[in-house]
Amino acid sequence: MSSTARSAAVDLNADLGEGMGDDAAMVQLVSSANVACGFHAGTPALLRRTCEQAVAAQVRIGAQVSYPDRDGFGRRFMEIETDDLIADVLFQIGALTAIARSVGGTVDYVKPHGALYNAIVSHHEQAGAVVTAVGESGLALMGLPGAVALDLARAQGIPVLTEAFADRAYTPEGTLVPRSREGAVLTDSATVAGRVVDLVVSGELTAIDGSTIAVQADSICLHGDTPGAVDHARAVRTALAAAGIRVQHR
Amino acid sequence: MSSTARSAAVDLNADLGEGMGDDAAMVQLVSSANVACGFHAGTPALLRRTCEQAVAAQVRIGAQVSYPDRDGFGRRFMEIETDDLIADVLFQIGALTAIARSVGGTVDYVKPHGALYNAIVSHHEQAGAVVTAVGESGLALMGLPGAVALDLARAQGIPVLTEAFADRAYTPEGTLVPRSREGAVLTDSATVAGRVVDLVVSGELTAIDGSTIAVQADSICLHGDTPGAVDHARAVRTALAAAGIRVQHR
Amino acid sequence: MSSTARSAAVDLNADLGEGMGDDAAMVQLVSSANVACGFHAGTPALLRRTCEQAVAAQVRIGAQVSYPDRDGFGRRFMEIETDDLIADVLFQIGALTAIARSVGGTVDYVKPHGALYNAIVSHHEQAGAVVTAVGESGLALMGLPGAVALDLARAQGIPVLTEAFADRAYTPEGTLVPRSREGAVLTDSATVAGRVVDLVVSGELTAIDGSTIAVQADSICLHGDTPGAVDHARAVRTALAAAGIRVQHR
Amino acid sequence: MSSTARSAAVDLNADLGEGMGDDAAMVQLVSSANVACGFHAGTPALLRRTCEQAVAAQVRIGAQVSYPDRDGFGRRFMEIETDDLIADVLFQIGALTAIARSVGGTVDYVKPHGALYNAIVSHHEQAGAVVTAVGESGLALMGLPGAVALDLARAQGIPVLTEAFADRAYTPEGTLVPRSREGAVLTDSATVAGRVVDLVVSGELTAIDGSTIAVQADSICLHGDTPGAVDHARAVRTALAAAGIRVQHR
Repeated sequence: MSSTARSAAVDLNADLGEGMGDDAAMVQLVSSANVACGFHAGTPALLRRTCEQAVAAQVRIGAQVSYPDRDGFGRRFMEIETDDLIADVLFQIGALTAIARSVGGTVDYVKPHGALYNAIVSHHEQAGAVVTAVGESGLALMGLPGAVALDLARAQGIPVLTEAFADRAYTPEGTLVPRSREGAVLTDSATVAGRVVDLVVSGELTAIDGSTIAVQADSICLHGDTPGAVDHARAVRTALAAAGIRVQHR
Repeated sequence: MSSTARSAAVDLNADLGEGMGDDAAMVQLVSSANVACGFHAGTPALLRRTCEQAVAAQVRIGAQVSYPDRDGFGRRFMEIETDDLIADVLFQIGALTAIARSVGGTVDYVKPHGALYNAIVSHHEQAGAVVTAVGESGLALMGLPGAVALDLARAQGIPVLTEAFADRAYTPEGTLVPRSREGAVLTDSATVAGRVVDLVVSGELTAIDGSTIAVQADSICLHGDTPGAVDHARAVRTALAAAGIRVQHR
Repeated sequence: MSSTARSAAVDLNADLGEGMGDDAAMVQLVSSANVACGFHAGTPALLRRTCEQAVAAQVRIGAQVSYPDRDGFGRRFMEIETDDLIADVLFQIGALTAIARSVGGTVDYVKPHGALYNAIVSHHEQAGAVVTAVGESGLALMGLPGAVALDLARAQGIPVLTEAFADRAYTPEGTLVPRSREGAVLTDSATVAGRVVDLVVSGELTAIDGSTIAVQADSICLHGDTPGAVDHARAVRTALAAAGIRVQHR
Repeated sequence: MSSTARSAAVDLNADLGEGMGDDAAMVQLVSSANVACGFHAGTPALLRRTCEQAVAAQVRIGAQVSYPDRDGFGRRFMEIETDDLIADVLFQIGALTAIARSVGGTVDYVKPHGALYNAIVSHHEQAGAVVTAVGESGLALMGLPGAVALDLARAQGIPVLTEAFADRAYTPEGTLVPRSREGAVLTDSATVAGRVVDLVVSGELTAIDGSTIAVQADSICLHGDTPGAVDHARAVRTALAAAGIRVQHR
């Protein structure tokens, strides 16, 4: 997003279909919906309604795949064999694909959820399993810039989407400040909105120590289930409009 | 199967991927595999291995969709809303489709399992929901001759596959003798095999009262998880070979 | 609640531990908490936190047992065998009992949830199964006045708790107006609160046709997950206090 | 089992209620049954039937608690928070306790299953969580000699049961040879039976390198779901009888 041409538009993504938050409001504010696939949250019927909302709002649909961990909302790392993980990811992508198609939509990308999202940043076997499944499906993979999984995907010619987080503080090294540290999550809507505009315009963010860092992002994640999520999203949209930046996926 | 031309071949189907019985042996003996989709049995990894076996054996794959009832193995009727059931069936078909494709296979038909199989014989709303989901998927629907769901499917131009049961006794009216009645399940392999040959050759079966009934069937179901299932299947194959009848799906 | 002595106090119950609504607020407003047991909602960790809240608020704990139906939130009737249902209910009661005890609480009663609640009003086999499991556990059974299950429980010497619904309209015959009919659910907090006071003072309610009916109730259910649930509960508490009626379980 | 007095008897345990293997046969051959609690396998109805079998055979019942991982049969390590794990273990113990009591039995000990069994050998937080839950329940904890969890349990005055494995090879250091290594699992019934007798009589086993090692064990685990499990168990019983050793729990 560093060039002027690219700066004129930004993709905003949020997690939907988890049975939490105000999906009907959020789907109007984003351009990409990460739809749960039942392994950490969501039921087939909820996924279908969520896809209907996304199609009606002309929002791109991504499969938010997870470890099979309903009780833990997919937030717990699991030591899972490569073959099992490949099958789990394929299963979820396929399920959502059929659901989306039945309401006139398509699934365009895969964004792993929770602990799986974090695991494939550095866990080579699990990253490889996810990439194998995404490659089979012919979709793009969305993840954290620098993640091992994205490198593996690129090496195999699989389209990659990097993302930044609107409401998270960054270290000077460009990684996310762990949630356990004070200041890790930004709660002021105006601050969140300002950072999004800065990022789109400059390709840079202010880190937690005040330094300026470059952040490469094809999409910006707005959390959908945090308190004030919809308020954040509205503030972001207003600020982007004021800056003349369109919200759209490519 | 009443004409001479059709009599020269028969499709044999069995339930696989349920984590019961000897799948590796059964897949060599049938021409169609009804693969569980995780709602009554099976895990993504098991479904994938089962699809691999089916592909290797050049066996047709069907999606064995179920109510979401792992504890009850899908054998308990559920009063489920139409929209929920449509989504459940689509979810399962999609999941298995992606799994099958990843190992070089395709899903060709849908065969509901257990209580759902029985429900759509007469329950109009649930039959309609299943047919809607199958129609969306572009697959064929396998079920009991005379089932409401098959009539609905035909009316919508959806391909239909009827089936007969090799190891079940029939009433003079051509319905299955309920399992709770003595003699409902045939346990002698030679008897089972003889009935299959008779059915393929003549399109008729001897009912429990000794009368002869016409039974229309595009496929014959061999149960895969009963004691002696593999022995039954081997006896059927031997008897069919002796009668010069090929085992193949169309 | 018809006598003066009994009128001076009322038990208020609500569903908690379902991961919906504002449990922390509701637990302060009721005297009995129906805690989910994981079959329709809730995780072991959530049940434990909910029991902690109940113990801290000195609120009685009931086991809100359900069909095994997470996807349907326990709201779908299941045709389930007697032995299976007995085991399901025992399993849930036992699980919650151990959880409650670990935080210094006890489980005092069982209140079936959703479709199971409705089934045991008239389904003799399922009513019998629930009563058998409750009897094994030595607890009381809470349900709808007139339910077959309550009759069976009384006949076996099992303590019974009847309940009325604060926010539901009643027919002249004393049954609940089905949710599908207009006016079935009362949404005005003042109206709900007034009815609760009337019921406690007089043992009577005004039915949907304006007639006066007697309603026997050992407890009054405040729904915990509907919009305005906490507002309703606060209005009820305020009205009861103004009328000099204590909120307590016996 | 080193003293003569103790050598005259041995406790044999096996995993039951997992829906695999021949439970009806195994329960006649052991003195302690590790009954699944639904998190890795088993349904409430199956657990109840298994407890009935155990009670009829006068076999001691243990709760075989697991990570919530049905798809992985509890064999996958999960990074699970202490509070979540405490609640999970309490939930399972309580559920089985109520089930067992309903058929005239009691739960006497807890034996973690699969990946959780291995985790608490060395993972301090998870070991602590399991011990906390077991301590709340007033039961004994069965596990691997040297496991951190057993040390923690002893320090808290919780009864501990150590176990040896009849069909597993040991390293010279007294740990189990990993399953991935050749020779890790013994498949010859006579060999397995001989080792059990040797262990009971001498308190020693021959390690994989031929050296003799001391193995402390209050119980000996016979795997219930491996091929030949029942044959192994029968051979063990015959060999023990020939050596004049009774099979019983203390």
